[in-house]
Amino acid sequence: MKKSVEKKSYFCPHPVFVVGTYDEHENPNIMAVSWGGMVCSDPPCVSISVRKVRHTYPNLMANMAFTVNIPSKHQIKEADLTGVASGKRMNKFDEAGLTPKKYKDIHAPYVEEFPVSMICKVVNIIELGVHIMFIGEVIDVLVDESMLDENGIPDISKIEPFAFNSADRHYYAIGEKLMEAYTVKKIKN
Amino acid sequence: MKKSVEKKSYFCPHPVFVVGTYDEHENPNIMAVSWGGMVCSDPPCVSISVRKVRHTYPNLMANMAFTVNIPSKHQIKEADLTGVASGKRMNKFDEAGLTPKKYKDIHAPYVEEFPVSMICKVVNIIELGVHIMFIGEVIDVLVDESMLDENGIPDISKIEPFAFNSADRHYYAIGEKLMEAYTVKKIKN
Repeated sequence: MKKSVEKKSYFCPHPVFVVGTYDEHENPNIMAVSWGGMVCSDPPCVSISVRKVRHTYPNLMANMAFTVNIPSKHQIKEADLTGVASGKRMNKFDEAGLTPKKYKDIHAPYVEEFPVSMICKVVNIIELGVHIMFIGEVIDVLVDESMLDENGIPDISKIEPFAFNSADRHYYAIGEKLMEAYTVKKIKN
Repeated sequence: MKKSVEKKSYFCPHPVFVVGTYDEHENPNIMAVSWGGMVCSDPPCVSISVRKVRHTYPNLMANMAFTVNIPSKHQIKEADLTGVASGKRMNKFDEAGLTPKKYKDIHAPYVEEFPVSMICKVVNIIELGVHIMFIGEVIDVLVDESMLDENGIPDISKIEPFAFNSADRHYYAIGEKLMEAYTVKKIKN
């Protein structure tokens, strides 16, 4: 039997995006975001949702650009710090011991140490409520060479990303490989 | 050293949403969607992205309502089937041995057997490219009573959801609990 519970995000997994932007003084900033995901394959687009009170919000509005950086579980503390501290009061790259790199044509810093970085330009902004959704078209995807498999595809067993579960506010590892997707054609015999 | 790779969705995790809609003959349909996520806390909103060729697309446009159902890893084959087969040619609820239930005020069926169902009304539609993004305001969240912890919160260790990794097109279990989120205030001493 199913029962109604609070209208919150009680599904899992959420991604852990560390979003990079520049502020008005050209200081690089990073912020952990779990409200987001892939929203289109072609052109490739991702969404991130940010509250107006966050330091990242005016940065997005001014530059119309951001990066989405995917941390490994070995970088979980660095990633978490960026969701707790505010870029208004500290340089979170410095505080976390991470290196901001400027991408050539897009005015947003990516995190050198994190295995995957998506470089995005804002193509849509939608005010939904407490969160403003920014849709970014992915201009480039940068992956640490040591994280690629023999076919040049990012290898999850090397990257070791992690997930956020909002119901209990904890991070979880990505676990065992269960099954190839889009292969079940029939269940009944 | 980071290098540019194909501009695809090379991050992980993606959620596995099984999206419920009714078609023009009032037949219930379900379809697996991994392009989506949480987009706002208040009002609570989720996004799903669907191609126009899918049977779900006209259903969404006609009813402006959908459900997001979260399968357990023990229901992985049923969930995968809904991403392979088309509702144009079969009743996927029947084929997967699942039960459609109508929610009182919203014209969309939810999956009785899946542990979590979010009931949504469409509040925004954005054409991004090959995918059309539908933003649903969450009207209710239904959870199987046996999946709640002693505080009435959905318990991930009971639900056992799973994730999709688009880089290798496989599903992965949610693994070990790593850390409480939003707790790291300092890294350097």
